[in-house]
Order: sequence, then C-alpha cells, then structure tokens
Amino acid sequence: MENVSFTPIDQIGEFGLIDRMKEILGPTTSDDVILGITDDAAVYRVSDDRVNIVATDALIEGVHFDRLFMPMEHLGYKSMAVNISDIVAMNGTPRFATIALGIPNTVSIEQIEGFYRGVRHACDAYGVEVLGGDTTAARYLTISVTVIGEADIQDVIFRRGARPGDLICVTGDLGAAYAGLRVLLNERNRMREEGDSYVPDLAHYEFVIQRQLRPRARLDLVNQWRDAGVKPRALIDISDGLASEINHICSQSECGAVVHVSAVPIAFETRDVADEFQEDVDAFALFGGEDYELLFAISPHDVDKLDDKSFNVVGEFVEKERGVQVMLPEGESMPLTPGGYTHFRPGAEDEES
Amino acid sequence: MENVSFTPIDQIGEFGLIDRMKEILGPTTSDDVILGITDDAAVYRVSDDRVNIVATDALIEGVHFDRLFMPMEHLGYKSMAVNISDIVAMNGTPRFATIALGIPNTVSIEQIEGFYRGVRHACDAYGVEVLGGDTTAARYLTISVTVIGEADIQDVIFRRGARPGDLICVTGDLGAAYAGLRVLLNERNRMREEGDSYVPDLAHYEFVIQRQLRPRARLDLVNQWRDAGVKPRALIDISDGLASEINHICSQSECGAVVHVSAVPIAFETRDVADEFQEDVDAFALFGGEDYELLFAISPHDVDKLDDKSFNVVGEFVEKERGVQVMLPEGESMPLTPGGYTHFRPGAEDEES
Repeated sequence: MENVSFTPIDQIGEFGLIDRMKEILGPTTSDDVILGITDDAAVYRVSDDRVNIVATDALIEGVHFDRLFMPMEHLGYKSMAVNISDIVAMNGTPRFATIALGIPNTVSIEQIEGFYRGVRHACDAYGVEVLGGDTTAARYLTISVTVIGEADIQDVIFRRGARPGDLICVTGDLGAAYAGLRVLLNERNRMREEGDSYVPDLAHYEFVIQRQLRPRARLDLVNQWRDAGVKPRALIDISDGLASEINHICSQSECGAVVHVSAVPIAFETRDVADEFQEDVDAFALFGGEDYELLFAISPHDVDKLDDKSFNVVGEFVEKERGVQVMLPEGESMPLTPGGYTHFRPGAEDEES
Repeated sequence: MENVSFTPIDQIGEFGLIDRMKEILGPTTSDDVILGITDDAAVYRVSDDRVNIVATDALIEGVHFDRLFMPMEHLGYKSMAVNISDIVAMNGTPRFATIALGIPNTVSIEQIEGFYRGVRHACDAYGVEVLGGDTTAARYLTISVTVIGEADIQDVIFRRGARPGDLICVTGDLGAAYAGLRVLLNERNRMREEGDSYVPDLAHYEFVIQRQLRPRARLDLVNQWRDAGVKPRALIDISDGLASEINHICSQSECGAVVHVSAVPIAFETRDVADEFQEDVDAFALFGGEDYELLFAISPHDVDKLDDKSFNVVGEFVEKERGVQVMLPEGESMPLTPGGYTHFRPGAEDEES
C-alpha cells in the first residue's frame, strides 16, 4: 500500500537489514541495557549484580529445515538448542523459554507431540523451563523460540574482548553439521530423481546427520570453565561457520586473526563425507555452519587451566592491521572472509524444498 | 517420518493443543517460576521482590493479516502492541522486546523499513526497547515478537483473583476492531469481484479500521490505577472477545458471571457498521476480538477510587454454580460461551487470503 520504490532484500542481505533496523530503532537509552542488538543475545540488568540474557531464533520450513528429513523430535530439540547456544555464547545459564509455533494443516497432532517431546528433552538436558508462547495456524511450519538466561554481571562474556596475542580456540570439531546437510540434500535429490523406488540408507552417515539435525549447545563447557575459575576474553557460538564468527569477534574486538587451517579439528566421519563428495573438508570446517561449537579468545596465561581435551588452539589474535587471515597447509596465507551461509545469498532459493 | 497415525489439529483446536503441550512438558519445577503457561504472559522472579513478565505472540500473513490492507507501519505497531497488551494484562511495565522476522522476497527493503518505523512508534509510545531478534527468509511474512516486562511481585494481577460480588468492568469500547475486520474483508471481496476498476473509499470507516489495524495497549490505565493505589483482583486483555475472556477469568477464579449486554460499551461508529451489514452489534462486542481493551474484576468498595470515564461496569461475578450468563436487553439470560475467534475453527481457511 505504500507508494515507494521496491528494492529487493537481497540487495543488502541479512546484515544490511539489521543495520537498517538499528538505524530506524535508534540506540537503546535505558541504563539497564548492558548489550543491545550486537552479539548472539541481548543483556539487561535485573538487579545490582545480576543480568538476564535473551535470544530469539526462528526456524522456518523450507528455509531452515525440510520436514522430509527432519524428525519432529529432533526439530523440537534443535529449536531449543540453537537458542540455548546463544545464551551459552554469552557465558550465561539458560533458564526459561517461550515458543511461538505456526502449524500448517499438513502437520498432525502426533507430529506436534513429537516436537514437544524434543523440546522436553532439550529442557531436561539444559535445565530450561518453557513458560508459554503462542500456537497458531500457518502455511508452513514456523518456529520461533525465545530463551532467557541469567548470569552474574561480571561473568558475561562479549564478542568484543579479544586482544592481540590471545589464542583462538574452538571446542569439539567443525564441519560435521554441514557434512550432514550435504548428505541430506543429496538424498533428497536422489529421491526426487528415482522416485518411490529409492530407499535411503543413512546408517553410514549417522554421526554427521545427527550433528545437523540435533546439535548440542556447549553448556557443559562454559560451566566447566566457570568452575575452573577461567574466563575467556571473547566468546561466540559457531552457527554461521568459523570464518564468519572469527570475523565477528575481530570486528567487535578491533583486532586481526591468523587461523591455521591444519589445526582446525575435523572428525573422520566429516572427512569421509567430503571425500565421497570430492570436496575440500577444510571448506566444510571453515564455512559450514550449525555446529554450535564455541569459538573463544583466551590469554596464553590462562590456557593451561582448561581441560585440553575440550578444545583446540587454531590460531591467534593479532593486530587489527594484519586483518583476518587463514594459513593454508602449504604455508600460504589468504584472507578469511565470512562467506558463511547467509539466508539471503543469491541462489539460496534453489536449495529450498 | 514418524510411523504414527495422522490426527488433524482441528480435532482438538488451539486450547487442546496447549493442553497436550503442558502434559508433555510437565509442570514447572523452579521456585522462581511464579506463573507458567496459564495467563497471557508468564511471570518469573528475578530478585527478592521483583519479577519479570514475558509474552510471545506471532502474526502470520494470511492467518492474522492480509498485506493488501495492512500498511507495514501499522503491522509493526500492532505486532508490538498485542504483546505489550499481554504485559499490561498482568499489571506489568513493558521494557524490552525481541523480534523474529521471516521475510518473503515479495517484501521490499522499503516495506521492512516501514515495519520498523511502526515498531519504533510503539516503542516510543510504551517505553519499550528492542534488544535483538532474528531476520530470515520465509515464504510468507512471519512476525514473532517477545516482550519482557517487569513489576513488583505484589503488583502482579492474575486471572484467578475474581470473587463472587466483584464487579465486571471493561475499559474503552468493544467490537470496533471486529467491525474494522468486517469492513476490510468486505472490501477485499468487492475488489475480487469488481477487479481493478474498484476503488475502495474507506474514509467513512476510519475509526473501526484504525482499531483493527493499529490497536493500542491500555498501559495508560494500569499505570493510572497503580498511581491511584487501586489493584483490580483479576485482569485480562480482550484479544479473543469478551465472551472468551470472561470465561477465562471465571474458569481460573472458580466463579460465575452475569454480563448485562446493554451495559457493554459500543462506539457509534461500530453500531453504524453493524447496521450497514444488518448484523447484531452486540455480537460484535461479545465475540469480536482484537480490541485489546481490558476486562477486570474489582471489589465494589474500590470502584469509586477509579476514574469513571475510563471504564464501564458490565456485570458482576457470581457463585460458580450459576455459570457464565449474559442478560439480554429483553431481560432473558443465556449462557455466554467462548465462541471467540479460534485460529483452528472449521472454515477459518475461507477467510484467509
């Protein structure tokens, strides 16, 4: 109804849109806001020494998942885990959640019950309680979860705290969730080509598929670090790929980084999938998203206080002027640009169901 | 993928679904949870004497609004107002919001900017700050807003506090938003029938259309009551229609009610629309939703402390055994059953675009 020009969203992409939103909404003015629209989650004061942390993420059918390959229980679990991961990425303790669910009439009561069983598993695993939400009709299954966490104000870790000389660390292994996505997309294509006669056999890919469909949030590790009295200087969860997240930390911390690709931890199951597809597994690890492992900056003096089975050092933060670089196995270095999955990237529609 | 039977959602409806969800998720166990999935919003303790209140509502294109008639600025404003109203309905002060937005490629940057301008207007009007959210692609415009409010623990008003003898009061006037919806649906039908040659002239209907497209939350009144030192015993916002909301209060408060239909406040503009459509304006007022006025229970001893321009007494709460009744102008009474708009009611699809 507005008589203005029509500029497609993909001209500015998701981050451009967030910038326009910030501009229109203006800066926050309340002293209680510790952190607004910047990191994975927002932080606001609820008493002298305590803060709450809030994160909201939407999962939309045909954009974030394909119901054909996504069992409803996993979907319920994942919807919670990705938001819980955002609280974890601020070093908070997740506490409460609300769920807004848009349900098409092609979804049954039994499937919704499966969804809530998955939600319940995540609640039990991470100590979260669902307090409410909204249930409504929709054309496509649409899930929006908000998780609220809490923390002592001095425990919160932001993206902005990394300093030159700090070590770049990642937990777990990377690229597995992307390998799982590749397997599932390939299976879908085969089902389309071969029709009902095709029976997928996914047993061989269980590890990577599980990582794609049912990612875990690393609450265990931030709790362990807090118990050990160690506080990383910057922290982020790897939802959009290592390359994207390291650039977020560098941009907020005003520093550069050198990542050694040979040091990036990759599971052999992930390597197998990359080999099978004749692709570069390092690209899976650097640019594949949805692993929900943690990327953090830690002072070299603190690193020995952490359980070294729980993380790998993959490089170091350097002066801003040096930019964000990746050292290839051959010894060359090249700029490490985000290039992570963006929902508005050209051609994204092709991958949707 | 689950090998179970397929029972359509409309066999149990929205409230049946919420019951199944509660069953699967189980009761909340934390002492910090003051109120879980029951009222408009959930309440949890953040310090000894303070609580936070959280509400989540989704608005989905084709279910809750038609972009043809919904200017994006109004949509932004309404998305905020309906959630703010849920905080108001617990007697809280809205503070923070997150917004998850699913954007189809038929929406332009300019339209999204319009949406955020509407959000900004609501933020300015109600003292709310947007702290974050999520922006993603979608097939239909999908908006999920979470608003977090705060209150002193003793100020929170639940649905469960009404007692026989309390007066039933409503703020403002009712049925206007539904009248606006009827006008817009009628215009849409005429546009479909008459094609491009039809030019809608809506100036005459501005009041009711505004009430439908840009409802206000009655934060002004709960603030006024608190300043006057008066606390209603039960409170709810009228989102699904008076009949539905009075039944919610009666069910939670374990009492009955007698509503005098002739006492229900109705604007003359709303009467005009009902007359034009040859319909019963009382049905608009009793069953039409989305007015976002407040329904409250107050002791007869307290009622004189309130500004009598801000509300109307429409009946009284009675013993549970008498049920929920409406007194018609002719003096007869009949049961007042919810019959409010339910998103899963049979035939609802027909009204969708």
